[in-house]
Amino acid sequence: MHKKPLILVTNDDGITAPGIRTLIAVMKDIGEVVVIAPDSPQSGMGHAITLDATISCDEVKLNDESHREYRCSGTPADCVKIAISEILDRRPDLCVSGINHGSNSSINVIYSGTMSAAIEAGIEGVPAIGFSLLDYSWHANFEPLKQQVKKIALQVLEQGLPDGVVLNVNFPKLEQGLFKGIKVCRQARANWVEEFDKRTNPQGKEYYWLTGKFVNLDHGEDTDVWALENNYVAIVPVQFDLTAHRFLPQLKTWKL
Amino acid sequence: MHKKPLILVTNDDGITAPGIRTLIAVMKDIGEVVVIAPDSPQSGMGHAITLDATISCDEVKLNDESHREYRCSGTPADCVKIAISEILDRRPDLCVSGINHGSNSSINVIYSGTMSAAIEAGIEGVPAIGFSLLDYSWHANFEPLKQQVKKIALQVLEQGLPDGVVLNVNFPKLEQGLFKGIKVCRQARANWVEEFDKRTNPQGKEYYWLTGKFVNLDHGEDTDVWALENNYVAIVPVQFDLTAHRFLPQLKTWKL
Repeated sequence: MHKKPLILVTNDDGITAPGIRTLIAVMKDIGEVVVIAPDSPQSGMGHAITLDATISCDEVKLNDESHREYRCSGTPADCVKIAISEILDRRPDLCVSGINHGSNSSINVIYSGTMSAAIEAGIEGVPAIGFSLLDYSWHANFEPLKQQVKKIALQVLEQGLPDGVVLNVNFPKLEQGLFKGIKVCRQARANWVEEFDKRTNPQGKEYYWLTGKFVNLDHGEDTDVWALENNYVAIVPVQFDLTAHRFLPQLKTWKL
Repeated sequence: MHKKPLILVTNDDGITAPGIRTLIAVMKDIGEVVVIAPDSPQSGMGHAITLDATISCDEVKLNDESHREYRCSGTPADCVKIAISEILDRRPDLCVSGINHGSNSSINVIYSGTMSAAIEAGIEGVPAIGFSLLDYSWHANFEPLKQQVKKIALQVLEQGLPDGVVLNVNFPKLEQGLFKGIKVCRQARANWVEEFDKRTNPQGKEYYWLTGKFVNLDHGEDTDVWALENNYVAIVPVQFDLTAHRFLPQLKTWKL
């Protein structure tokens, strides 16, 4: 009999978020699930790891379910490290992260705790997928995503992923109707234009809140932003070799 | 008369670290310097940004010097965002980050607060360089680096950098002698193998410290790790479009 695949589930919104509960439900259809997720929200943590503080990782029972779950005081990347190194008895066959409450398309992959967990798994040689929904609400409707999430996870288990590549999957927020389909995309060249909200505290000291506007000047129809605006599910293959190979020859001509 | 270039200086070890003080000294030879750096160490922060807390950014005078300095409660990426959006009167001509106390070669670019500051500047369209020294000591000797740091910064100001590319510069720790030269490299394919140090607190609860061994199975002589092991200064051009373009055609053949 074929052994069930071992699936590590994590996220950055914290172990009680509806997004990860949906992901767990889908993965239990596919394999043996172990959850190791942050004990509190970790949005915007990028690829942070905990070097100057201790990490706790405690088994919990959130529902009357049979799979193992651990809540971890660390970042999403810490969760994956501790899962693979300490908690799991064998190397997972798949790591899934999310489903994030909010977009991780375009440049947001850099800031994303959801994607840092997937990338950390990729660095450790585990096939990995980050899932996100373009809806920040805690009460977002994850039901319509389940079928697509399952299909993508099954394809990764069947086909594998090349060394050094993980998948970044974003779902549009559907007002009504169905997803038009799944599009394989490149990351749009867009960025945030910051608008710091400057305030004064009761003691008269100034402080800021980071806010901003997402500006996309990339009008290509092969980008994740385009796909999402047109009601497609966007999949971007993401790499963590950051070398700008195309610039190496020119840089070698510099007087250094 | 040619206007002096405006240079934004930041780091992840905090504004009082000897590494950034060296970098400030070198940059004052080249242009007008403004320092906006974390008020405390931020190593391993990756590309974290502060979304769930307020940020303070206060002008300070650390030495009897004429340039402006600000200490910021945020992450290195926050420092660059707030610098460009709120503090600086005009767009900087260059952003330099470091000099980090410790290596940021190979996969460490992903975890590095030093490099996240440089990458954030790159995202904002500002030419940027992260500098690191392979010596974690607070008392590391930064003197031999000054000439090379200046040379590389001047080249970036003169030549510019392509859109979407920043530089990651690592210096070997010299026991004696001189750097053999500067090598343009690719990021070595290496990673950390975690070794969590499990302990018990006075109340009997288990916790962990994250430790690990850096394992490099990439024996190419064109990598940053090779260059550093052979006493060269390593420069890797780093990109923040994470799309694995080479895998797009194959992924498009999947049954999705």
